Amino acid sequence: MAKPERTAITPTRSEDYPEWYQQVIKAADMAENSPVRGCMVIKPWGYALWENIQRALDKKFKDTGHVNAYFPLFIPVSYLEKEAAHVEGFAKECAVVTHSRLQADGNGKLIPASPLDEPLIVRPTSETIIGEMYAKWVQSYRDLPILINQWANVVRWEMRTRLFLRTAEFLWQEGHTAHATAEEAWEETRKMLAVYADFAENWMAMPVIQGEKTAGERFPGAVSTLCIEAMMQDKKALQAGTSHFLGQNFARASGIKFLSDRGVEEHAWTTSWGVSTRLIGGMIMTHGDDNGMVVPPRLAPVHIVILPVTPKEDSRAEVLAYCESLKAELKATVWDGRTLEVQIDDRDIRGGEKAWQWVKKGLPIRIEIGPRDVASNGVFYTRRDTLEKATLPRGEFVAKVGSILDDMQRALLERAKAFRDSNIRRIDSKEEFYDFFTAKNADKPEIHGGFAFTHWDGSDEVADKISADLKVTIRCIPLNMPSEEGTCPFSGRPSKQRVIWAKSY
Amino acid sequence: MAKPERTAITPTRSEDYPEWYQQVIKAADMAENSPVRGCMVIKPWGYALWENIQRALDKKFKDTGHVNAYFPLFIPVSYLEKEAAHVEGFAKECAVVTHSRLQADGNGKLIPASPLDEPLIVRPTSETIIGEMYAKWVQSYRDLPILINQWANVVRWEMRTRLFLRTAEFLWQEGHTAHATAEEAWEETRKMLAVYADFAENWMAMPVIQGEKTAGERFPGAVSTLCIEAMMQDKKALQAGTSHFLGQNFARASGIKFLSDRGVEEHAWTTSWGVSTRLIGGMIMTHGDDNGMVVPPRLAPVHIVILPVTPKEDSRAEVLAYCESLKAELKATVWDGRTLEVQIDDRDIRGGEKAWQWVKKGLPIRIEIGPRDVASNGVFYTRRDTLEKATLPRGEFVAKVGSILDDMQRALLERAKAFRDSNIRRIDSKEEFYDFFTAKNADKPEIHGGFAFTHWDGSDEVADKISADLKVTIRCIPLNMPSEEGTCPFSGRPSKQRVIWAKSY
Repeated sequence: MAKPERTAITPTRSEDYPEWYQQVIKAADMAENSPVRGCMVIKPWGYALWENIQRALDKKFKDTGHVNAYFPLFIPVSYLEKEAAHVEGFAKECAVVTHSRLQADGNGKLIPASPLDEPLIVRPTSETIIGEMYAKWVQSYRDLPILINQWANVVRWEMRTRLFLRTAEFLWQEGHTAHATAEEAWEETRKMLAVYADFAENWMAMPVIQGEKTAGERFPGAVSTLCIEAMMQDKKALQAGTSHFLGQNFARASGIKFLSDRGVEEHAWTTSWGVSTRLIGGMIMTHGDDNGMVVPPRLAPVHIVILPVTPKEDSRAEVLAYCESLKAELKATVWDGRTLEVQIDDRDIRGGEKAWQWVKKGLPIRIEIGPRDVASNGVFYTRRDTLEKATLPRGEFVAKVGSILDDMQRALLERAKAFRDSNIRRIDSKEEFYDFFTAKNADKPEIHGGFAFTHWDGSDEVADKISADLKVTIRCIPLNMPSEEGTCPFSGRPSKQRVIWAKSY
Repeated sequence: MAKPERTAITPTRSEDYPEWYQQVIKAADMAENSPVRGCMVIKPWGYALWENIQRALDKKFKDTGHVNAYFPLFIPVSYLEKEAAHVEGFAKECAVVTHSRLQADGNGKLIPASPLDEPLIVRPTSETIIGEMYAKWVQSYRDLPILINQWANVVRWEMRTRLFLRTAEFLWQEGHTAHATAEEAWEETRKMLAVYADFAENWMAMPVIQGEKTAGERFPGAVSTLCIEAMMQDKKALQAGTSHFLGQNFARASGIKFLSDRGVEEHAWTTSWGVSTRLIGGMIMTHGDDNGMVVPPRLAPVHIVILPVTPKEDSRAEVLAYCESLKAELKATVWDGRTLEVQIDDRDIRGGEKAWQWVKKGLPIRIEIGPRDVASNGVFYTRRDTLEKATLPRGEFVAKVGSILDDMQRALLERAKAFRDSNIRRIDSKEEFYDFFTAKNADKPEIHGGFAFTHWDGSDEVADKISADLKVTIRCIPLNMPSEEGTCPFSGRPSKQRVIWAKSY
């Protein structure tokens, strides 16, 4: 397959990044908009990625002592009202169920009937309904901790939607835990953030910064929101997961009380934490290139596709048999704790078109087998990340395939880390900061935006002004950093730490 | 552990079956009602069963060529209207979303705001929204078949709800396929029914009759509905899964058209098929006994629990170490394609209470290890199905544990099959039929109901009369039965086949 004049995706990333993103999703056949405003259809290739994300995360949750359960889709409006910040955050964009029936009007058109006594909203998140149940389940300190996760769909009536990144309905998991002490709840909050960071880096090959949100960016009702932030290839930040220390706010709102081991009635301390189908958007924007999607091997629904190349009818059966036996051999190979997923694509379509379909889907390794490979007992393969082609003797390829996948997984993370690190800048002057986010210097395209690591005096005024001027916000106050006294370059006032500033999704 | 005077569940099955059912769910801590009308909370033990059901079925779906995807939660009312029978079936009980925001009224109370242009309903099933997408995806016969499954929540505003069996929101899977020919769609409909029957019998150990629904019991919009019907221990029928041949009805409603290989534009032929969390209700009512839940080993979230019995402090460490090493050895044992799930329960609660908690949860094998077992290198265990106790040398127990589980799985199916078969009766007279479903003969409790296998003339009048008189309906026309000419005992008219009559859930 000759390298094409043009890349497979039009436009390229540098030509029009947002449009490139949409085109990658289309080319890889991962999702599309549905006729229901803001709701997407996740197509089989996109959903298979979500299944693999689920499998890996679910194991991590269980390994850290959590169990799954399922709570109602609907939340009575009165529950939402119990936590003031929470209702403020979610009432503005929610799906409200008001009737329980449709009936024909005079013209035979269906209209809502049987109004509900109390409207329900479709859960935008489940703290209030789950809190209501925990209040029933918890009486004594012996009932704590509760460590439950839920895989579910949620709805937030977003105005501007974008596939995977922001949709009215999305799929996610939400962990909800209740503890006897603040310390234990804090430990849980940090532990689950670390689980997310581990998953992002070692499964998605997406480096992240662990940090704490500022008050203005906190989850509505939380005492503290921790987050992981990743840099996309357009140098914007993606919040990829959050873990909230809720203090006793929701326990008070829902009445989660327990008799402590000292016989005192106390409110529980709760946490919640979630990641969503947004991760798939992050995966696309971290690894995708101008030829389409690039799936990190650990999350690939299919690791290897084998394309039989059968130019002549008389060698066709032989080539197909070789492909079948190679497939069987590879499928028996264990990599990363499971056997490899291998497919033969013998569809009757042009070879070049077929190969490019798999490139665009981002499948890690493509093998093409023709009569010459059969004759030489070889394997001609292409790595998706580098598009490097090579031929190896069959035995050697089978023996090495695991290390090739390891190498791709590592290379993707390294490339993403190098890109991110070269686009984080310590900035100490207002001028350089504004320049960083606005300059259009063709000679130094690398300085047009990224993450600025800059002091901040902690005031809303500074944050609001910069947001208004540049659409740049504080993504997080990084954790695990020595606090560094300094001066806020915007106000001249003293600052206790540098924070990460960026444009964001 | 001495056998208690009473059984663990009050009331027993024979005292009050419906209440026994609720109490088993409570005792096993599987689910409970939520404050949202008709919506249940599936608690960790119940949800773990659902996860195992999902894993087993999902593999079967993939092995038969299906892939998963995800479609929107909401359906525009106008879509529902496209299929006349469908709207008739679902408009009467559905959650209608009419607003996209809440705002405070004059008194600070939240009320719905921002009305939608067109109301949406929360999907009661997804034929119409999925059909809309398939219409976009299908142009040519080369685009067929489409073989997609979705795992999702659905909502039907049921008036009378019962945990797992009938809830306003429930979890399920819905397969939706589109084909170029009627034959192929029919083959798919039957194939998926066979998948369900295989799953019910060989995983759930719940014997089922495969059959076709009569016109009156068909899925709204289907040409034919196939079903699997199981008999519960109160001799009522449970419809445990359905597979619908939809003909071209939904393809016409949604416009799923393709250019055939002969160049003619045709409507596709579609199917849909589903099972739900209702299966868990079926599992309880098939295997549960007066001591609680009995989980078939193949679907058990935990196969074995080990209870350390440590009456004396000085042997405590030794007993715990023995339990840990036994657990490690058992966890390395592969059974039914996966390693055994084993837990040690060393909670500080009374031994008898602890043991009974696991009995009530239905966990297959309970092991109790005290100092004497350590000394003799033995394993004292109890099977949940028979409550039989035995001691085996440790090595022998580990070697035999797989065959013990096999035996339990087989015994559960055999017991259920024997029960069902002894409660199916060929009935040829109206009098015997009425007696079968109404007699309260203390000497012959076995004849009070069950499945009557009786001729039917095919008329609605007969079916309606019997339903009105006895609350007995035709569960299905069994498949794979030779057609047998006869006389309908109710009308005296000729009949082409016997059908299964029963009271049902």
